[in-house]
Amino acid sequence: MLTGIHVVLAGGDARQLEVIRRLTELDAAVTIVGFDRLETSFPGVVRAEWSPDVLRVADALVLPPVGTDDEGVISAVFTEREMKLTDAELSALPETSKIYCGMAKPYLRRLAEKHRLGIVELFERDDVAIYNSIPTAEGAIMLAIQNTDITIHGSNCMVLGLGRTGLTLARTLQGLGAKVKAGVRREESFARAYEMGFEPFYVSDLARHTGNLDLIFNTIPNMIVTAQVIAGLPLRAVIIDLASKPGGTDFRFAEKRGIKAMLAPSLPGIVAPKTAGRVIANGLIQMLLEDRQRGNAT
Amino acid sequence: MLTGIHVVLAGGDARQLEVIRRLTELDAAVTIVGFDRLETSFPGVVRAEWSPDVLRVADALVLPPVGTDDEGVISAVFTEREMKLTDAELSALPETSKIYCGMAKPYLRRLAEKHRLGIVELFERDDVAIYNSIPTAEGAIMLAIQNTDITIHGSNCMVLGLGRTGLTLARTLQGLGAKVKAGVRREESFARAYEMGFEPFYVSDLARHTGNLDLIFNTIPNMIVTAQVIAGLPLRAVIIDLASKPGGTDFRFAEKRGIKAMLAPSLPGIVAPKTAGRVIANGLIQMLLEDRQRGNAT
Amino acid sequence: MLTGIHVVLAGGDARQLEVIRRLTELDAAVTIVGFDRLETSFPGVVRAEWSPDVLRVADALVLPPVGTDDEGVISAVFTEREMKLTDAELSALPETSKIYCGMAKPYLRRLAEKHRLGIVELFERDDVAIYNSIPTAEGAIMLAIQNTDITIHGSNCMVLGLGRTGLTLARTLQGLGAKVKAGVRREESFARAYEMGFEPFYVSDLARHTGNLDLIFNTIPNMIVTAQVIAGLPLRAVIIDLASKPGGTDFRFAEKRGIKAMLAPSLPGIVAPKTAGRVIANGLIQMLLEDRQRGNAT
Amino acid sequence: MLTGIHVVLAGGDARQLEVIRRLTELDAAVTIVGFDRLETSFPGVVRAEWSPDVLRVADALVLPPVGTDDEGVISAVFTEREMKLTDAELSALPETSKIYCGMAKPYLRRLAEKHRLGIVELFERDDVAIYNSIPTAEGAIMLAIQNTDITIHGSNCMVLGLGRTGLTLARTLQGLGAKVKAGVRREESFARAYEMGFEPFYVSDLARHTGNLDLIFNTIPNMIVTAQVIAGLPLRAVIIDLASKPGGTDFRFAEKRGIKAMLAPSLPGIVAPKTAGRVIANGLIQMLLEDRQRGNAT
Ligand SMILES: NC(=O)c1ccc[n+]([C@@H]2O[C@H](COP(=O)([O-])OP(=O)(O)OC[C@H]3O[C@@H](n4cnc5c(N)ncnc54)[C@H](OP(=O)(O)O)[C@@H]3O)[C@@H](O)[C@H]2O)c1
Ligand SMILES: NC(=O)c1ccc[n+]([C@@H]2O[C@H](COP(=O)([O-])OP(=O)(O)OC[C@H]3O[C@@H](n4cnc5c(N)ncnc54)[C@H](OP(=O)(O)O)[C@@H]3O)[C@@H](O)[C@H]2O)c1
Ligand SMILES: NC(=O)c1ccc[n+]([C@@H]2O[C@H](COP(=O)([O-])OP(=O)(O)OC[C@H]3O[C@@H](n4cnc5c(N)ncnc54)[C@H](OP(=O)(O)O)[C@@H]3O)[C@@H](O)[C@H]2O)c1
Ligand SMILES: NC(=O)c1ccc[n+]([C@@H]2O[C@H](COP(=O)([O-])OP(=O)(O)OC[C@H]3O[C@@H](n4cnc5c(N)ncnc54)[C@H](OP(=O)(O)O)[C@@H]3O)[C@@H](O)[C@H]2O)c1
Repeated sequence: MLTGIHVVLAGGDARQLEVIRRLTELDAAVTIVGFDRLETSFPGVVRAEWSPDVLRVADALVLPPVGTDDEGVISAVFTEREMKLTDAELSALPETSKIYCGMAKPYLRRLAEKHRLGIVELFERDDVAIYNSIPTAEGAIMLAIQNTDITIHGSNCMVLGLGRTGLTLARTLQGLGAKVKAGVRREESFARAYEMGFEPFYVSDLARHTGNLDLIFNTIPNMIVTAQVIAGLPLRAVIIDLASKPGGTDFRFAEKRGIKAMLAPSLPGIVAPKTAGRVIANGLIQMLLEDRQRGNAT
Repeated sequence: MLTGIHVVLAGGDARQLEVIRRLTELDAAVTIVGFDRLETSFPGVVRAEWSPDVLRVADALVLPPVGTDDEGVISAVFTEREMKLTDAELSALPETSKIYCGMAKPYLRRLAEKHRLGIVELFERDDVAIYNSIPTAEGAIMLAIQNTDITIHGSNCMVLGLGRTGLTLARTLQGLGAKVKAGVRREESFARAYEMGFEPFYVSDLARHTGNLDLIFNTIPNMIVTAQVIAGLPLRAVIIDLASKPGGTDFRFAEKRGIKAMLAPSLPGIVAPKTAGRVIANGLIQMLLEDRQRGNAT
Repeated sequence: MLTGIHVVLAGGDARQLEVIRRLTELDAAVTIVGFDRLETSFPGVVRAEWSPDVLRVADALVLPPVGTDDEGVISAVFTEREMKLTDAELSALPETSKIYCGMAKPYLRRLAEKHRLGIVELFERDDVAIYNSIPTAEGAIMLAIQNTDITIHGSNCMVLGLGRTGLTLARTLQGLGAKVKAGVRREESFARAYEMGFEPFYVSDLARHTGNLDLIFNTIPNMIVTAQVIAGLPLRAVIIDLASKPGGTDFRFAEKRGIKAMLAPSLPGIVAPKTAGRVIANGLIQMLLEDRQRGNAT
Repeated sequence: MLTGIHVVLAGGDARQLEVIRRLTELDAAVTIVGFDRLETSFPGVVRAEWSPDVLRVADALVLPPVGTDDEGVISAVFTEREMKLTDAELSALPETSKIYCGMAKPYLRRLAEKHRLGIVELFERDDVAIYNSIPTAEGAIMLAIQNTDITIHGSNCMVLGLGRTGLTLARTLQGLGAKVKAGVRREESFARAYEMGFEPFYVSDLARHTGNLDLIFNTIPNMIVTAQVIAGLPLRAVIIDLASKPGGTDFRFAEKRGIKAMLAPSLPGIVAPKTAGRVIANGLIQMLLEDRQRGNAT
């Protein structure tokens, strides 16, 4: 249980509703900010306006998965008021409290460092990233269905990167009957891909494997689908880039060659906000419980 | 080869482009009607206006998959002119020629009968229906992703009917990590479902299996998802009805209870027109070749 | 329940223990013959010696899955005494009673016909054959592992016939990571094989598909793996023939060419007698219940 | 190519034949010892007797996968003469040469250390261990089929440890239609198991998950299937322990309780010597090539 833990949850989208629900179930004291347009009633939850004051007794400040943008703005779909995270707010937070988000941009990172406040990035956790890979893969599948005139079944697909997201996506495509090439860099990943029935290759040889592709999915957060790679693709190929902004594709060149390419961020929140919210809630709660235990231990 | 065979192809959507391409590849003499807004050039193909005259030497009249509507109108997305199939046209067709479509409605059936012309319904063929089930299943998957806030992975799905479409759909859902209940009526289907890892039940017991469902997919062309069944569903459940119009769902009651339900016809043409076109083209060509051989034999 | 139904169960192997257990559970009156060497005690079951008398009040005579051999001998692993089914025994059976077995050989068929007694062949039922295909496939897998020096994963396998057994076997091999070619004769089977991710071909083209095989599994009960086919196989290939005796392989030629080939009958009873027994028991009970209902109805 | 590299290969079983074949293909100078009973001729390969002399110009000494036993004896199925690795032999090896095996026991490790010779343990490499996990899993499947009276399909299986071997085994069981519980210790493994459709649990809770098992497969090289765990198993359960000697099972207690339990070492060499030999050959060759490149670089 989280009895006695005070959580302030600021901004976010439908995913946060699941987080709120779960926190209250575990008896945390929850204050939410940035949900004025939301009708749902959460028994026991306090609604507040964004201000340093609301943070003064918080043990945890929960931001949306993306944290803040480069100017500190907290995205919040359930309000029209702007909420900004600045020195004022962080000064108000008790020094023992922590900031929770999915991934932190440089702005948030610097601000927290300045105020010597800990940041917990949930998507850094391997387990959270793996759970999150499931809605991500389904989002990618949806885009693939929408953006091709063929079926995924029987198509020639390529997944770049067999990390937490890539492995799930490759399995999902295989489950739909696609032939899946998997681009890796480690011998171990090559072996696992072979065992799992993908056709592995080293990304250093990428340009040699593009001749007959229908779909490329990228999860490597580096420029990897270069102009040279794109030049070797058939015109029908579609590129779906899942890597965090700015992705790993030369979008300018793809457009020039007339090849459909899209950056597809934030899929879990789009295609499965409830599942994605549960993933975040579970990760958050686990971190809070661990912190509390650690605190109790000392 | 189809050398010497004269095919008139009237109306249709993107799927027919694949049909046209394949017919010309096999050297059939092809006349297309209802494609005036289409830029693509098909070398060797004759474009014509809709009139009885165009049919006078046709060995085959190829209609869109849906045939005609109840007034004889031929759907045609690449023209704005209306094309109607009436006594005038069928009188012009040589008596040895045949009419090809996916499924024939009563209007078309009666008209052809009156003129003693054979109708070939491609979707009646088991192989064509099975190939077609692949884009259908992917369309259903797309709808499921779009219309739920959870992932298919880990969800509780039900597929009603394990026929040509249902089996493919059940396998596809399983490939995505769903738990799949399969509603059947024959003991043999029950056994196969068990062997394939679905959880089979008899549709006569349907009402007993609805308690914890996230998604119901229906392929049985009868009223099966009745008010009683819907009353037992959790409110979050979504019904996707694939059966041909009017489907097998009491949509009125679903709406009343606030349960999302949708009739989802013609998925192959929507999500994978090229694959769907190839399926039709392959089926059509096989029928034409068989007819020709039979003709030669006599 | 089977209260009041008198079943005489004669001979068989470990599979019949499951049948006995289930019949008594359902309150049938059970007499067993040919189990003198078996220690297990079955409360409520009567043990008897083989004689016409024991059959005089039987509603059902349950024989082992193979029925009798060509001389009428009932195989029975739990006794050393010979049991023979002859005119004497069948004359004793009431004319309303039926004989149950898996498959009936000509001897049994003729004898039953002569005495106008119904024979029920459980393995004729599609559902029973499908359930039975599961232990059959696992037996074939075991033989393949034992008889090759490579893994099934990554191997080139061929399954001839995609019927009740072949489909299960093809799926099982695929689940282990083999590449599976499936030989069919119907277009519908070809389409389903394609949908399921096998590489289908028509058995009429068999000779063209043997060049690179590691394993051939046959389920077609006709001479199909002929000398010509075997001549085209690589020497390392192994043939596992599941079809009922004499199988569909030219074993003499295979031996001459030095290619390992084996007829592999009765796998379910060998690798999974308990599962196989349950399959038989379920099928038998269902038939008895249906018969009783039909009886009651009249 | 391995031109100019001198390899001495001493002892081993059928797997080493593949290694010899591949080394000669790549033009290494190969001397084999302990193959006197083998008829196969390997063109260009030198056969020798075991003696220090044979090692004086070796760049690499290739031992069988298990290295030596605790007294230094090299296992060798193709000879009756004993070969022992002692100070005498290692003194003869050039100091730049290396010893290759699958896994090294303490005896070998100490001896090599004393002579300052490098040991390369191929099975330590993640990729080799993953490739090797495939024949291991098939061996485990074979044992499971042989040692139960039910099918794997539909059975309740447990895999302890989702490492390189466990993951492959769990996938293989799933591919055969088993319900698979996977025992892990890391949250990340828990998440991946969930994504892959296994039912994950923490091994710390093992005793709570044994109630309804048919089969337990252990890959954790620690005492884990303790008397307490075994006490909770149904009597029909079968334990197959794959962990290296002495395994992780209380075999004494299993026997006492009448539960079938078996230690199953060295499966790849038993069920798929050719595949297993290729895995070793590939790993070995890669290491030799890397070493040579490193050598050239300096
Ligand atoms: N679009 C969305 O909705 C969404 C959702 C979740 C995640 N993401 C994004 O997707 C990306 C992948 O996330 P993840 O959780 O899967 O991360 P991850 O587990 O770290 O996977 C990244 C993969 O890229 C490979 N890689 C990195 N640099 C490489 C290089 N230079 N050459 C070859 N391979 C390289 C890694 O290989 P190794 O395994 O060898 O390290 C790894 O397999 C991230 O950018 C993440 O932000 C997007
Ligand atoms: N939405 C789309 O895009 C799309 C695409 C393709 C097809 N369809 C439609 O989907 C439907 C199914 O097509 P299909 O090709 O799969 O046909 P199908 O192979 O005939 O399958 C129909 C299934 O429904 C079962 N069924 C029929 N009546 C039943 C009843 N009274 N009770 C229980 N089960 C019953 C059949 O059981 P048995 O196996 O026991 O006969 C069969 O398994 C059709 O209406 C078709 O027009 C829609
Ligand atoms: N070894 C064992 O332990 C074991 C266990 C169970 C069964 N069996 C035996 O295995 C065999 C198959 O049993 P099953 O239950 O799977 O029977 P099944 O469902 O009738 O399957 C037989 C398959 O063979 C195909 N076939 C038949 N004649 C053919 C021909 N001339 N050319 C091409 N294909 C042909 C059929 O094709 P269509 O689908 O087009 O008709 C069908 O797919 C039987 O002999 C049975 O006794 C053996
Ligand atoms: N029988 C055969 O033919 C055969 C063939 C190959 C290998 N093996 C043997 O099989 C065993 C596993 O090999 P492998 O290559 O799979 O090794 P591995 O990748 O290291 O896997 C071992 C697994 O055990 C887990 N583990 C270790 N200690 C644990 C503990 N105290 N509690 C819970 N989990 C624990 C590890 O968890 P983490 O992932 O959290 O570290 C890991 O997942 C070894 O003993 C190997 O020698 C046998």
